[in-house]
Amino acid sequence: MSNTFGKLFRVTSFGESHGIAVGCVVDGCPAGLELSEEDIQKDLDKRKPGTGLAGTTRKESDKIKILSGVFEGKTTGTPITLITYNEDQKSKDYSNIKDVFRPGHADFTYDAKYKGNRDYRGGGRSSARETLARVAAGAIAKKILAKEGITISGFVKEIAGITCENYSQKDIDRIYTTELRMPDKDAEEKAEEKIKEIIMAKDSVGGIVEVIAKGVPVGLGEPVYEKLSGEIAGALMGINAAKGVEIGSGFSCAKMTGSKHNDLMQTENKKISFLTNHAGGILGGISTGEDIVARIAFKPLASIAKEQKTITKDIKNTKIEIKGRHDICVCPRAVPVAEAMLAIVLVNALMEFKARE
Amino acid sequence: MSNTFGKLFRVTSFGESHGIAVGCVVDGCPAGLELSEEDIQKDLDKRKPGTGLAGTTRKESDKIKILSGVFEGKTTGTPITLITYNEDQKSKDYSNIKDVFRPGHADFTYDAKYKGNRDYRGGGRSSARETLARVAAGAIAKKILAKEGITISGFVKEIAGITCENYSQKDIDRIYTTELRMPDKDAEEKAEEKIKEIIMAKDSVGGIVEVIAKGVPVGLGEPVYEKLSGEIAGALMGINAAKGVEIGSGFSCAKMTGSKHNDLMQTENKKISFLTNHAGGILGGISTGEDIVARIAFKPLASIAKEQKTITKDIKNTKIEIKGRHDICVCPRAVPVAEAMLAIVLVNALMEFKARE
Amino acid sequence: MSNTFGKLFRVTSFGESHGIAVGCVVDGCPAGLELSEEDIQKDLDKRKPGTGLAGTTRKESDKIKILSGVFEGKTTGTPITLITYNEDQKSKDYSNIKDVFRPGHADFTYDAKYKGNRDYRGGGRSSARETLARVAAGAIAKKILAKEGITISGFVKEIAGITCENYSQKDIDRIYTTELRMPDKDAEEKAEEKIKEIIMAKDSVGGIVEVIAKGVPVGLGEPVYEKLSGEIAGALMGINAAKGVEIGSGFSCAKMTGSKHNDLMQTENKKISFLTNHAGGILGGISTGEDIVARIAFKPLASIAKEQKTITKDIKNTKIEIKGRHDICVCPRAVPVAEAMLAIVLVNALMEFKARE
Amino acid sequence: MSNTFGKLFRVTSFGESHGIAVGCVVDGCPAGLELSEEDIQKDLDKRKPGTGLAGTTRKESDKIKILSGVFEGKTTGTPITLITYNEDQKSKDYSNIKDVFRPGHADFTYDAKYKGNRDYRGGGRSSARETLARVAAGAIAKKILAKEGITISGFVKEIAGITCENYSQKDIDRIYTTELRMPDKDAEEKAEEKIKEIIMAKDSVGGIVEVIAKGVPVGLGEPVYEKLSGEIAGALMGINAAKGVEIGSGFSCAKMTGSKHNDLMQTENKKISFLTNHAGGILGGISTGEDIVARIAFKPLASIAKEQKTITKDIKNTKIEIKGRHDICVCPRAVPVAEAMLAIVLVNALMEFKARE
Repeated sequence: MSNTFGKLFRVTSFGESHGIAVGCVVDGCPAGLELSEEDIQKDLDKRKPGTGLAGTTRKESDKIKILSGVFEGKTTGTPITLITYNEDQKSKDYSNIKDVFRPGHADFTYDAKYKGNRDYRGGGRSSARETLARVAAGAIAKKILAKEGITISGFVKEIAGITCENYSQKDIDRIYTTELRMPDKDAEEKAEEKIKEIIMAKDSVGGIVEVIAKGVPVGLGEPVYEKLSGEIAGALMGINAAKGVEIGSGFSCAKMTGSKHNDLMQTENKKISFLTNHAGGILGGISTGEDIVARIAFKPLASIAKEQKTITKDIKNTKIEIKGRHDICVCPRAVPVAEAMLAIVLVNALMEFKARE
Repeated sequence: MSNTFGKLFRVTSFGESHGIAVGCVVDGCPAGLELSEEDIQKDLDKRKPGTGLAGTTRKESDKIKILSGVFEGKTTGTPITLITYNEDQKSKDYSNIKDVFRPGHADFTYDAKYKGNRDYRGGGRSSARETLARVAAGAIAKKILAKEGITISGFVKEIAGITCENYSQKDIDRIYTTELRMPDKDAEEKAEEKIKEIIMAKDSVGGIVEVIAKGVPVGLGEPVYEKLSGEIAGALMGINAAKGVEIGSGFSCAKMTGSKHNDLMQTENKKISFLTNHAGGILGGISTGEDIVARIAFKPLASIAKEQKTITKDIKNTKIEIKGRHDICVCPRAVPVAEAMLAIVLVNALMEFKARE
Repeated sequence: MSNTFGKLFRVTSFGESHGIAVGCVVDGCPAGLELSEEDIQKDLDKRKPGTGLAGTTRKESDKIKILSGVFEGKTTGTPITLITYNEDQKSKDYSNIKDVFRPGHADFTYDAKYKGNRDYRGGGRSSARETLARVAAGAIAKKILAKEGITISGFVKEIAGITCENYSQKDIDRIYTTELRMPDKDAEEKAEEKIKEIIMAKDSVGGIVEVIAKGVPVGLGEPVYEKLSGEIAGALMGINAAKGVEIGSGFSCAKMTGSKHNDLMQTENKKISFLTNHAGGILGGISTGEDIVARIAFKPLASIAKEQKTITKDIKNTKIEIKGRHDICVCPRAVPVAEAMLAIVLVNALMEFKARE
Repeated sequence: MSNTFGKLFRVTSFGESHGIAVGCVVDGCPAGLELSEEDIQKDLDKRKPGTGLAGTTRKESDKIKILSGVFEGKTTGTPITLITYNEDQKSKDYSNIKDVFRPGHADFTYDAKYKGNRDYRGGGRSSARETLARVAAGAIAKKILAKEGITISGFVKEIAGITCENYSQKDIDRIYTTELRMPDKDAEEKAEEKIKEIIMAKDSVGGIVEVIAKGVPVGLGEPVYEKLSGEIAGALMGINAAKGVEIGSGFSCAKMTGSKHNDLMQTENKKISFLTNHAGGILGGISTGEDIVARIAFKPLASIAKEQKTITKDIKNTKIEIKGRHDICVCPRAVPVAEAMLAIVLVNALMEFKARE
């Protein structure tokens, strides 16, 4: 369903960038889970714009409010409504983007699909601001997973061709204290230099985000059309600006041989382990018990200050320079979003598994 | 749903590799579509094993039968059941794979998930033989799309690191007359050489398949959680052995700048066109009218004749050499499967679009 | 899905009786529909408590707000969020219903299902207050149907055994100007007398509501498991306090013969008509083009001032007298709710029909 | 979905009355359930035509075959395909029903909906023969429920106005040894007399079927839009020829007062019980632990030998006498179908409950 995600743990998202509010209804959360606005705020703050290198300069406090489904500090099993009222709705002049389709944006496709009915202010529904609903819902999903010993983490693997090579799980764990969400300090410094150049050039860059789930039990995921891999790929590719998704070895598998790619199994004291994890924790669509590892390629942000050719709503050739607040690279802010989507997929898989126990 | 795919045009697949039959029920097909067993057989024959270089040597005629939903040569709007009775169920000795988990296969995960209840013969339900149900259903989807001017094609882009570079749409159109489903003759020859080496080494290889949809109208796909990109990614990653999916520029977008990546628009005589198609035909989850282009990375086939370490069902260390019929590379036979999945996603998107007209 | 209704036009409802807000997210509404808060308020006002005979005395203004999905007076195809903030949340003493299960209410079952996590204030999520979300969503559904010439009406057919016999469509059309929503003035007067007696006896009564859809084209409804009759029955039985649903002849069909029950067809000038409508507008799960007629039996309101035996939350025998604001008969206020549910079912059937055109 | 029923335990039905086969795919059954063709055949035989009083004279052996999903006597968690090949497809003359719409049948609506594409032979897809798929799937559902201590039974409550009044659970348990599936011997004798008269009059009759679920734990069913009552009503109203559904007190509740209708609770030794069960085992959409009791009103069979007015496919007035094999009353054969639908609803509710444990 277009604005609902999940079968048993379901998120229905709503709201436009510059409308009254953005939020979601989370349905299917078990009763008795301790849940406060702080629990959700904590995750939401992770997607807030940074100090400016790669982030927008929009100053939203994004204060989440719980409107339903929680009573005396615990979930009641009824729908949890999470809402953020938009503060920063300055009635600025949108005539620019109202009548002109911004290259690389969804302006043209929304306009065509919805027959010209479109809240163009800040991109409306197609704005990445919608992802706060995902992060908010994901915070609940993560709490459910944590009770089963499953943890989710994410980080920026690559920006502008600069890739993190040297880092530990510890570096990943402290990722939200960094500016670019890169666990490799050297890479981060180089990326910052690169980003400065790109800002000077009035341009933007793409990158890669990696998400990892640890502690996933063997057996999650349904075979054939609800493979865990398929569900994850669908969820991650559904994040704004994603152009590619891979699991485990990913695209590099295309050049490998079977004898290298196959993850051999061994046992010691009845404990089963895999010698490698090219599978990224999933075999035949079902979790293996190893870490689930997925990566998403994000395109460079479409909004750039450089002049670009485009057309107007009434189909005339024109040019546009996009000014004002916007990101240079989506990756740092996409990390908590990717974590959230992975968490929601896993909660659903876990519930589906339990349903047939 | 685990064995049902699609919301409005729905495919429910069933059957095991060495059971009585494999097939599917296609629900939601409009009435009045001319449909014969030949229409479906034609596509099914595309996934048949080839002469041996990259294909298995299993000799199945895979004759499809229509059990319901078609009357006097036309669909009636009721469920269409497509079935292939398994001919080649030789009661061979399966003790090898019955008690030992084949590396890179779903044996271990199925066994764990289903508590030891598993039809191990030929991989049972996890066998790629299930994909014939997808191809059969996809043949119907393609017929529906064709009436709207939408056509689907696919080919092998890369095998063992050898990539097709020089080819035209004409080469793609005659792809099923080639051995490796590669449109670039030079690349195919090199790949054949490489495959021979790999066979000698008792090994297997991965590769990349590309699928393209032409003639897709602007406006298909739902925003946010049913983005056309997300649906396609989920569908393609759900094909056996897929480890990565990308759309348009895909992973290469991570290294690009916005000024290069943005597809500029222009108009001439009120016709709208894009100067490039890095978007792969989708912006904001909605089709742009340009070709939809997706690629899938397939891992090397897990079954190799080389000796590999693994464990037994009762958790003891052992070794295995997988003999008998199996492929070297999944890509050639995956082409019609990928085409089918793309077709089914697009039919669903088309119907969802019409629903709100 | 438990708090989402509909496949293509989807309503996700949220909120508790005495929480912060009650509302819903409507997803799948076509773009370009003129929609204002007044359009929805008009229907909401129909379910407001009356002057007291059969209605609760709660004084809520139930002002609806549109939080998203509408721009410049028209729907944009994105989720429409409708919300009513609860005004009347007086922090009264709920110790009575907090610890004691009210007979005929969902207190016991919610408490068991949700392991004691329950917003008991005013019944929480199980309160009929949730139905305002349905009416609000139904107002949008009705607007979509109206564009296709489909109209919905409803009325109270029977209260406390007093049945409406003499009335015309005109009487039904002005139903919201009456006190008891009964189109037969004589019956209404008798029912009012009866209700006064029941109030004196500190008791409550049941009744029957009828809903009618006119102008439904032939062919809506899917055969087998999504029969229009099944969808309507499921939707109407899902209204609080419903114990029975019937379509057309309904339960009276059990005593009829086929020669009486069969609705014979005839044609004049190529126009097709049925001589009777025992089918209630549905044959084989598909609309016939005749009026769709359905009736719902509602049980007497569970909250009565009479002393009743019951048990406490910690499982001890006790007695309860339920004081304060509550209805005597659910039927008058259930009329707009039943209309709304029928409208939502029909919009979904209409969209599903169009999807395959 | 039109030919798929259920969310977690899903039945996809296919086939036409006089096509090649009728059957279903059952998806979501847990692995490890012992299952044989005999298990299913046993239930299927319950819907076989009787000796002729109320049943059709069609002589089908309805032999079920399991095509997939069962290995070495146990379910494997993969889709279970159940199929019955139609034996009795005599190529008789259908010109009568091919061109003329039978009154009370779905001929007209199918023809309109599917634009004239219709397998008219024996009613095609709209034939009650489809219900064998439901009974077959229900047999699996019952086995799952039995493991949790839940049992389902059903019987004919009323035929032609003659109602069963005196009977015990024992009488219900031996219901399939009776001719009319009536547990009250006196009533059955009277009904048989009545049926003889109706046969003489070339007519048919309606009736009422009751189904009961015992041993259902407290807490099944989702509130609001997936109320257990709503799910049951939708499922039962979706059975061919159903015109009404009621739960517990049903339509009689409309004339009752709250003090009579409310089921008071009491406790003894910490055991909770209800003094009455007007609720029919469901409060607020959630099971109470008491018996779930539902009744379905079935219209008289539409096929009667009496001459009836109707129209032809090319819209001309005509008359029809329906000859050949058909039932007089649907109720006896509908009993196992109603049991099956209730079982499938409960398995789904049970799985949904477990999902959030």
